[in-house]
Amino acid sequence: MYAIIGTWKMSFDGVSAAARDLAGGGSAGDAVQAAIQQVESNPRFRSVGLGGLPARDGQVYLDSGYMDGDSLRCGAVLSVSDVSSPIACARLLCGRDTNWMLSGESAKEFAVSCGIPLRDMRTEESQETYREAMKTFSPGAPLSAYRGHDTVCVLALDTKGHMVSGTSTSGLFLKEPGRVGDSPIPGSGYYCDTRFGAAAATGLGEDIMRGVLSYEAVRCMREGMTAQRAAEAALEGFVSRKETLDGERGHISLITLSPGGAFGAATTEVCFPFTIATPALTRILYTLPKKDGSMAILDTQPEGTGNPD
Amino acid sequence: MYAIIGTWKMSFDGVSAAARDLAGGGSAGDAVQAAIQQVESNPRFRSVGLGGLPARDGQVYLDSGYMDGDSLRCGAVLSVSDVSSPIACARLLCGRDTNWMLSGESAKEFAVSCGIPLRDMRTEESQETYREAMKTFSPGAPLSAYRGHDTVCVLALDTKGHMVSGTSTSGLFLKEPGRVGDSPIPGSGYYCDTRFGAAAATGLGEDIMRGVLSYEAVRCMREGMTAQRAAEAALEGFVSRKETLDGERGHISLITLSPGGAFGAATTEVCFPFTIATPALTRILYTLPKKDGSMAILDTQPEGTGNPD
Repeated sequence: MYAIIGTWKMSFDGVSAAARDLAGGGSAGDAVQAAIQQVESNPRFRSVGLGGLPARDGQVYLDSGYMDGDSLRCGAVLSVSDVSSPIACARLLCGRDTNWMLSGESAKEFAVSCGIPLRDMRTEESQETYREAMKTFSPGAPLSAYRGHDTVCVLALDTKGHMVSGTSTSGLFLKEPGRVGDSPIPGSGYYCDTRFGAAAATGLGEDIMRGVLSYEAVRCMREGMTAQRAAEAALEGFVSRKETLDGERGHISLITLSPGGAFGAATTEVCFPFTIATPALTRILYTLPKKDGSMAILDTQPEGTGNPD
Repeated sequence: MYAIIGTWKMSFDGVSAAARDLAGGGSAGDAVQAAIQQVESNPRFRSVGLGGLPARDGQVYLDSGYMDGDSLRCGAVLSVSDVSSPIACARLLCGRDTNWMLSGESAKEFAVSCGIPLRDMRTEESQETYREAMKTFSPGAPLSAYRGHDTVCVLALDTKGHMVSGTSTSGLFLKEPGRVGDSPIPGSGYYCDTRFGAAAATGLGEDIMRGVLSYEAVRCMREGMTAQRAAEAALEGFVSRKETLDGERGHISLITLSPGGAFGAATTEVCFPFTIATPALTRILYTLPKKDGSMAILDTQPEGTGNPD
């Protein structure tokens, strides 16, 4: 058995290619890295890697995390600029006993020391979007997660039973430089324990961290929930509480994967697309909240739910 | 009822003074901030605030986190330098919807914008310790948590039933500049949910994050465990796993506080001192692991366990 799941439609090409490697005996770590790099290197995807949307100073600051579910070891880079592949950097940090979570210039120096190419991650298109937004930007105005174009998260199970979680993002559009979201934070943006399962989150990082949602989802699988039920329970547990506290449910989506290759997804959005590849299927699927709090998983995009990447 | 608990002997003066304010109706947030600031401003404590031990470049980079258990809101500063009170900075960030986790220069700029004084946090004594250590330092050599002089963590319950968690540290001695540990990370270094309890961790941050230990301890209280049992269960769950994976149990201590004011502590060390103040007692207590995996709490320091601050 192998399985790989990624957030948003943008992960489809990378997840599909990585699944072919998994089918041939490739490792979960290679699959996660390759699938995420496919998104990082594509400037069409505006919230990850090259062409990612800038902070309010016009620069692109990237966050990425990687966790190996066999060893419970992690690597993470926070608010790093000019690194062509943050996930490659995070993965290379995984395995260190100390200093595996590096921020800012230190993360960049680490990338250089490993031979990861530096490049200006801004594109003409992302700069134009930035300039347009800054015309009306006010520092006190609320920011919202860039709908439908958010963190790429990938969870993989390989044929040897190993599991890995990874994430990569440019973070909240017009964030303060130096702001860190959930994506590089183990427990919040991602978590992975080969005994129980893997999870990752996309949406407003500041809310995801309040609920430590990826750890919570894996904790639910540890208690015996299916991957789907764990995604729903972890999300609903926090979101119903947030509704009481803040008067709104927020913008959060979760994906999960069990050690047996069962997958799950849950969202507060009208429709959250994700990609999945197993020996049985390779597909974009759509998750929608149902009235009873559970989720419907559809294999055709419902009408009127737009085209979130 | 009120209660306040802090890690290490170094928190005693601050916790004692804050308890007097709590007894007079002061807020949990004020108590946590005041107790931590007492440690941050004392250069005798070598792992927090002024006089904190430097990274391998000789500079002092500070981490701090703050969580309000009523709102589940947090504030955090990561790898910030020259800020006289990181906990004041973290607390001021708590309440923001976005951009409440700031790293590096951005955190420093925020401190300046709030009027938090900047100062060189190095002392002659910390620089001397650094110069001595660098004589024999090798970049590839393993680093160890600075035994007995680690993160100050404070958990408080006020007479209105509010709960708050806070942490402050200069992090691992001789860390890479930009390295981030568990202390500013919600779920790992601290967590607080007024419904279920508060927890915080001290020790090797890289291990604490692998187990998301503060969230796990609060999760155990949510399941009905006492504060003491939750600290033991959260610690032992990860540490026994770490022993299997890494061949050693590591260096981690946890403190917990229940909404009823019951407290708990657990450690992998021979002896972990913590401070507690309730209407019934104000004291330094000592936690030691027993053979059966539970903890003994003593009110006199056992012979031969040194004098960890």
